[in-house]
Amino acid sequence: MEKLKKYVSVKDEDHFYHQGAVELLIFNFLLILTILTIWLFKNHRFRFLHETGGAMLYGLVMGFILRYVTKSPDVESGTVYECEKLKSGPSTLLINITNQVYEYQYKREISHHNVNGHQGNAMLQKMTFDPSIFFNILLPPIIFHAGYSLKKRHFFRNLGSILTYAFLGTAISCIVIGLIMYGFVKAMVHIGQLKQWEFHFTDCLFFGSLMSATDPVTVLAIFHELNVDTDLYTLLFGESVLNDAVAIVLTHSISIYSPKENPNAFDAAAFFQSVGNFLGIFAGSFAMGSSYAVVTALISFMHLTKFTKLCEFPMLETGLFFLLSWSAFLSAEAAGLTGIVAVLFCGVTQAHYTYNNLSPDSKMRTKQLFEFMNFLAENVIFCYMGLALFTFQNHIFNPLFIFGALVAVFVARASNIYPLSFLLNLGRKQKIPRTFQHMMMFSGLRGAIAFALAIRDTDSQPKQMMFTTALLMVFFTVWVFGGGTTPMLTWLQIRVGVDPDEDLKARAASQSAPNLDKNTTKAESAWLFRIWYGFDHKYLKPLLTHTGPPLTSTLPEWCNPVARLLTSPRAYGDQLKDGDTVYIINNDELTENYESSAHIPVPAQDSTASIQATGKEDIQEGDLGLGGYKLQLQHTADQPQNSSLA
Amino acid sequence: MEKLKKYVSVKDEDHFYHQGAVELLIFNFLLILTILTIWLFKNHRFRFLHETGGAMLYGLVMGFILRYVTKSPDVESGTVYECEKLKSGPSTLLINITNQVYEYQYKREISHHNVNGHQGNAMLQKMTFDPSIFFNILLPPIIFHAGYSLKKRHFFRNLGSILTYAFLGTAISCIVIGLIMYGFVKAMVHIGQLKQWEFHFTDCLFFGSLMSATDPVTVLAIFHELNVDTDLYTLLFGESVLNDAVAIVLTHSISIYSPKENPNAFDAAAFFQSVGNFLGIFAGSFAMGSSYAVVTALISFMHLTKFTKLCEFPMLETGLFFLLSWSAFLSAEAAGLTGIVAVLFCGVTQAHYTYNNLSPDSKMRTKQLFEFMNFLAENVIFCYMGLALFTFQNHIFNPLFIFGALVAVFVARASNIYPLSFLLNLGRKQKIPRTFQHMMMFSGLRGAIAFALAIRDTDSQPKQMMFTTALLMVFFTVWVFGGGTTPMLTWLQIRVGVDPDEDLKARAASQSAPNLDKNTTKAESAWLFRIWYGFDHKYLKPLLTHTGPPLTSTLPEWCNPVARLLTSPRAYGDQLKDGDTVYIINNDELTENYESSAHIPVPAQDSTASIQATGKEDIQEGDLGLGGYKLQLQHTADQPQNSSLA
Repeated sequence: MEKLKKYVSVKDEDHFYHQGAVELLIFNFLLILTILTIWLFKNHRFRFLHETGGAMLYGLVMGFILRYVTKSPDVESGTVYECEKLKSGPSTLLINITNQVYEYQYKREISHHNVNGHQGNAMLQKMTFDPSIFFNILLPPIIFHAGYSLKKRHFFRNLGSILTYAFLGTAISCIVIGLIMYGFVKAMVHIGQLKQWEFHFTDCLFFGSLMSATDPVTVLAIFHELNVDTDLYTLLFGESVLNDAVAIVLTHSISIYSPKENPNAFDAAAFFQSVGNFLGIFAGSFAMGSSYAVVTALISFMHLTKFTKLCEFPMLETGLFFLLSWSAFLSAEAAGLTGIVAVLFCGVTQAHYTYNNLSPDSKMRTKQLFEFMNFLAENVIFCYMGLALFTFQNHIFNPLFIFGALVAVFVARASNIYPLSFLLNLGRKQKIPRTFQHMMMFSGLRGAIAFALAIRDTDSQPKQMMFTTALLMVFFTVWVFGGGTTPMLTWLQIRVGVDPDEDLKARAASQSAPNLDKNTTKAESAWLFRIWYGFDHKYLKPLLTHTGPPLTSTLPEWCNPVARLLTSPRAYGDQLKDGDTVYIINNDELTENYESSAHIPVPAQDSTASIQATGKEDIQEGDLGLGGYKLQLQHTADQPQNSSLA
Repeated sequence: MEKLKKYVSVKDEDHFYHQGAVELLIFNFLLILTILTIWLFKNHRFRFLHETGGAMLYGLVMGFILRYVTKSPDVESGTVYECEKLKSGPSTLLINITNQVYEYQYKREISHHNVNGHQGNAMLQKMTFDPSIFFNILLPPIIFHAGYSLKKRHFFRNLGSILTYAFLGTAISCIVIGLIMYGFVKAMVHIGQLKQWEFHFTDCLFFGSLMSATDPVTVLAIFHELNVDTDLYTLLFGESVLNDAVAIVLTHSISIYSPKENPNAFDAAAFFQSVGNFLGIFAGSFAMGSSYAVVTALISFMHLTKFTKLCEFPMLETGLFFLLSWSAFLSAEAAGLTGIVAVLFCGVTQAHYTYNNLSPDSKMRTKQLFEFMNFLAENVIFCYMGLALFTFQNHIFNPLFIFGALVAVFVARASNIYPLSFLLNLGRKQKIPRTFQHMMMFSGLRGAIAFALAIRDTDSQPKQMMFTTALLMVFFTVWVFGGGTTPMLTWLQIRVGVDPDEDLKARAASQSAPNLDKNTTKAESAWLFRIWYGFDHKYLKPLLTHTGPPLTSTLPEWCNPVARLLTSPRAYGDQLKDGDTVYIINNDELTENYESSAHIPVPAQDSTASIQATGKEDIQEGDLGLGGYKLQLQHTADQPQNSSLA
């Protein structure tokens, strides 16, 4: 008898294994289908559907089939069992059922009104995977890749504008959406669709913050393919990357905003605590992410130049790089910070320092590895979004709320882009033209982050309504705006086919002629940037990489023994070796920029050498981002090998 | 009040997130430590500790710390709750605790005697992850990589011997271990350490089958680093790869062996059913794995040559390759077959056909991707093994059983290698020397597969005893034999520093002189091999890749229209383009081999061209495995770029 039971349990377990396999197989099948379709589209140069849009479409179809065509293998009754002995839910529960002990693991808390909707089609239930998977597994590689492939050269040229859009813009967007939604909620209460106490102003702000995370992956892919104007590309890419970080931390801060009394009234103490939380979490995550990257840079630097050669073992080097970057994410999570933000800044710092220390083989490996992970994770998320419309069981479709969200998102985007562009243009030498502003307005797509933030909490009815609405907004923006990118570019007559390096060269040449209005760029940010640039170039780069001037020339004389010990022997010799004419022309701009910062004393004998070294290396890094994107999107015929080897 | 509770639950959830992060961080930390140590060792050319051994050591230390140094944050009482209403354990359980509904997910069944040991240190419990993770996530990339990096050229030269060791040898090993263990179990019953009914002969056989999976990863790494004799390397690598597949299916077949009456008595019907199961599962998994690879080959072939160019988008190509290979695993699992076996043969077939169709960029990407996944997965498993000694709570250390296992494993290895080598030497022209046999005997390390098979089922006391013993055997063999490989090689005077291609060339040259004893190799297997080789070369290769003779010359004349449609245009033109002298010399052997198979009519006008094409391509594939290993282990100075680009 005992024997028999054991075999039954083994059978059950087997059945469980196979179930998991079937679900993953469905995902694989959808992704394969997506790849084949997209390959077909790319081949015929159809640009109205990006792979993410395709993945979403197939997910939608599969979700429909799973929901309405397949029969549920075992419908469980929504019975709730009572347990008087337990005071709270333990993480593991042992239950004796007909003399057999079973172990159950805590999954989540369920609101009473969800109990019935929750049970049902077992297949659907299994396709709905844990929201934490998004935050812990799927998002980190996407965000890291974004940071790692940032075109730093162009990014820093537009740093002020990008920061303004990302921080101020996201805050504006969050508040505007929150206010408009609050208006709609009031209206819904008025016509009786909603009860007053269900939906607070903080809930509206929460919705505003999660809907403020833009994800123009479709637009950026097309921009890259068509080589759209570099400044526009950089503005949009930079904004979307940083804006994700801001939106995530903002959402977190709002969700832990807890006024003491009436949740609807304004509580100054709680408000300032939220602001403090935001700043603390953001700064902490930033510090965590960059310090891991600095550690990686130090290890790879030590191994590369001073002591021995890690670069002889590219697998170990790549492994170390991967594990330390992942540790940045995990440490931030473990410390109660935001892992996604940490991993973003870790990526940026890794690209800035560590990348220079890696062996050529590891440079390629790390780039391709994260590119591939990004590709897979992105498609899985968009596939899942399509599926979620049918597999998620607690959707609340409220037409008024959805319409409100549509209006709010547009108004918020407009009141973010146009006023801020106007302000920025007051300070910028290179103005942001009207057409760029329209294009940025148009590129306010919502995607993975908004979805992941919305699905994180779907316990209460307001949250379910928000989730449904966010999902529909993603569908709408990705298909309509994503598909409309190419016509929009044509209509706005934005120039395409720009070679970013040529562009920069031309601009540098034109700038060096009228040397007067150098400091027209917004004074303070330029000053800050110059201070940072000087510090980075003179101390951090030589310390962490083998580029830049030797520390012996930048540190005061009495530090010489230490400096000699810390500087890479390569820094003395290699800097002038392969100075190409293109690089030298490009460096003019940086030279002037650098020398015009009068606060920093430049040792005369080293200035030329050091500047050339910097310029050279910046180009390399610019190429990193470029190469990464080229490889992902299209292996252009004119650069068959260079981009993959650079 | 309701509000308050919600915040508490959010806090709990946060706490849960962080716990997961801490555990992963511990793993990351161990892996980083391992990489740094191994890099140090490699640098000083210490060969007594391989990275897997190091990972295990660090895991052990960390396990000790977690168990005895840290305080358990929350010790849960081992209370078992009663539930009379339930008849069987549902997959999801909703429980009402103090008016709040919680969802619990089914994890596993627990034997009554494990209930107390099971609860305890929450940290340890969380470090013990689900055994199915081994089979579904960690093992597949390792096994796929083994298949994908098989040196096919040398593998096929020794196919007969490898198959003999893998199938017959594993069966012998399983039975010998089973019999010896049964003797020890009888003795234990006799002295009262064990009750008769606890341990059946099938349990002993189960233990025998799981302990028959060898994993000489440490030895192979050293062999590769020192360039040990190619035949020895190939025999050992081929045996260990196929032997895993055999052991897994064997274990599965034995575990579902269910005699009708007395489980101790021999039941012929049940026995033959088990044999049938074994053959069915093995053949089914083989078919599943290779058919997915053939589909991949067809897609990549179509895209490459006929219709359009998938190779312009290496990311899509790599994605497709990855997803289809993974689907092979999942489909086999979903169909009740063995995914690991499917993925192994999928890897071999992918390397044989698809690899030739990939763009150079994708060749490199797929190689490096699977290499990296293999590296990580292997180290995670060995780390986990170290941890498991302290974190697993139900160890049963029985000195007599452990001693018995030690004896059994040695006797079984000896009765596998020596008799089979003797038999094989009767048929082999190139005899397996005594020293090779000793080295193979010595290389019977146990590793990831044995561990994964043992941890799959630890419910009953016999199974727990087996798991503990298997774990100790892994420790012992990896550290003692892994560490002793280099001294052993010296002691046995096995030649090192062999260039595999040079070796082959020399051998081919020496063979072509005395052309008489061509057919001394075991007649039947050679005949089978030749049939297969001819079929593959004439029909499959041209159909699935763009190498080999055009189908128009190999198919009968009336098939010409179809043949023309199916043959790659490249096959006509490219085959003679870069025929190197080395290749042509190498091909002598194959030429003779090929032309001596009189059964297959060779169209006269095409034979030279076709043979050269094949030879060329075989070399490419040999280089795949070689390049892969070189990159992983040591980036030798003499091939800085070729190996990564080939």
